[in-house]
Amino acid sequence: MPITFVGIGLYDEADITLKGLEAIKNADLVLAEFYTSKLMGTTLDKMERLYGKKIHLLSRRDVEEGADDILSNVKNQNVVFLTGGDSMISTTHIDLRLRAMEQGIQTRVIHGPSIYSAVCGLTGLQNYRFGKSATIAFPYKRHVSEYPYDTIKVNKEHNLHTLLFLDIAERYMTINQAIELLFRIERRRKEDVLKGVAVGVARAGSESPVVKADYIEHLQKYDFGLPLHTLVIVGGLHFIEAEALIKLADAPNEIEKEIL
Amino acid sequence: MPITFVGIGLYDEADITLKGLEAIKNADLVLAEFYTSKLMGTTLDKMERLYGKKIHLLSRRDVEEGADDILSNVKNQNVVFLTGGDSMISTTHIDLRLRAMEQGIQTRVIHGPSIYSAVCGLTGLQNYRFGKSATIAFPYKRHVSEYPYDTIKVNKEHNLHTLLFLDIAERYMTINQAIELLFRIERRRKEDVLKGVAVGVARAGSESPVVKADYIEHLQKYDFGLPLHTLVIVGGLHFIEAEALIKLADAPNEIEKEIL
Repeated sequence: MPITFVGIGLYDEADITLKGLEAIKNADLVLAEFYTSKLMGTTLDKMERLYGKKIHLLSRRDVEEGADDILSNVKNQNVVFLTGGDSMISTTHIDLRLRAMEQGIQTRVIHGPSIYSAVCGLTGLQNYRFGKSATIAFPYKRHVSEYPYDTIKVNKEHNLHTLLFLDIAERYMTINQAIELLFRIERRRKEDVLKGVAVGVARAGSESPVVKADYIEHLQKYDFGLPLHTLVIVGGLHFIEAEALIKLADAPNEIEKEIL
Repeated sequence: MPITFVGIGLYDEADITLKGLEAIKNADLVLAEFYTSKLMGTTLDKMERLYGKKIHLLSRRDVEEGADDILSNVKNQNVVFLTGGDSMISTTHIDLRLRAMEQGIQTRVIHGPSIYSAVCGLTGLQNYRFGKSATIAFPYKRHVSEYPYDTIKVNKEHNLHTLLFLDIAERYMTINQAIELLFRIERRRKEDVLKGVAVGVARAGSESPVVKADYIEHLQKYDFGLPLHTLVIVGGLHFIEAEALIKLADAPNEIEKEIL
């Protein structure tokens, strides 16, 4: 029997595609994990009611160490595996898919809306002006990873924007916390990388996402409300991007000075 | 009245989200443009039957020069504007949204699955290892733009992958044509940028997308079948990416030599 990986989108139970819903309706067993990405605008209960199926929620450990258990179910049942956003973005999912294939299990991916493209639509920043992205993680034993900072630095050198995913592992990192962590690195390294415009996006996919652009030191004080939060550090702006940030993200008019 | 921009996804009429479908059901007028991205696995007729609404197809000129006409409809009607992939990726759509806002028209974006994230899931290449993306366009008056080539070059210098969107303006560019255009630039510039692994993806979002990885000179001869096609030029590989390309994209085992 096959395993179908379904990305259920950004915010609530209605962000799933018709194709994804159809796969659930045909499933014998529906599994889900929400530790790599979580839909904040819904509950397991609401999802079960709309999808018409019981959902078995898996923990990080279930997925990372229990792959064999998951796959043993696939032998006799039509299994659907749900994740937030688009499917297969996390290496854990790719690993599970590769193991399934090794066991001769058919796999299929059904895509869903992802923050990866949604930030472009919400901010008006152009997708081909983004460099590589990175994740800002909470400090581990007081150690703050400088990887996102270096990513921003390289992207800025090429006038590219940086999409930063914020940690959701223990708790939901806010844009304010993310900026504070970046500034902590900057103070230590005494470089001048962060200066300029940044954009925060909260609750992408909801009826009223908050999208706010400003100089990064001002943005740090802005209240974005409930999670999930995403941060974009802006490289140089094209004039149409500047116009979009002013109109869509309430940026101050001064950002026009940042136009390339 | 509001204008709602809905991204209807990758391949066929079932790639729309429940939220997008709901917006169509509540619309007085449904507009669509398919010149920036087209769903190859469906027809206007099939979409109209599933969505239960007449769809008015707009040409490039309608959208680019007829924005005022489109917006005049919004005054009295609840308008939904459909596009392939995720919504608002093209500057044309952003422009339309900004004009609507200037006229005091409420706007809303409903996201859909995008090739931008789908390539990661289909190939197993990790999203944070992609640099900036680019579009390969058909030659204009025999002039071939070197912009995608330069993008690949910079990305490769940082060991990053490059996602290349292929032109769909006049006809659908194949992966084979795209590689030929890149080689044409390489022959002229006598550089050695392209060498290495590439991955072609055809019909993302369909039941059986073709995903094939190989050294670029071999990939050029591979028959990917019907459009739409997308090309990834691979930077250095992580071992899990190499494993994924071998298993998901039928890459030759030799690509393990390209592991960083």
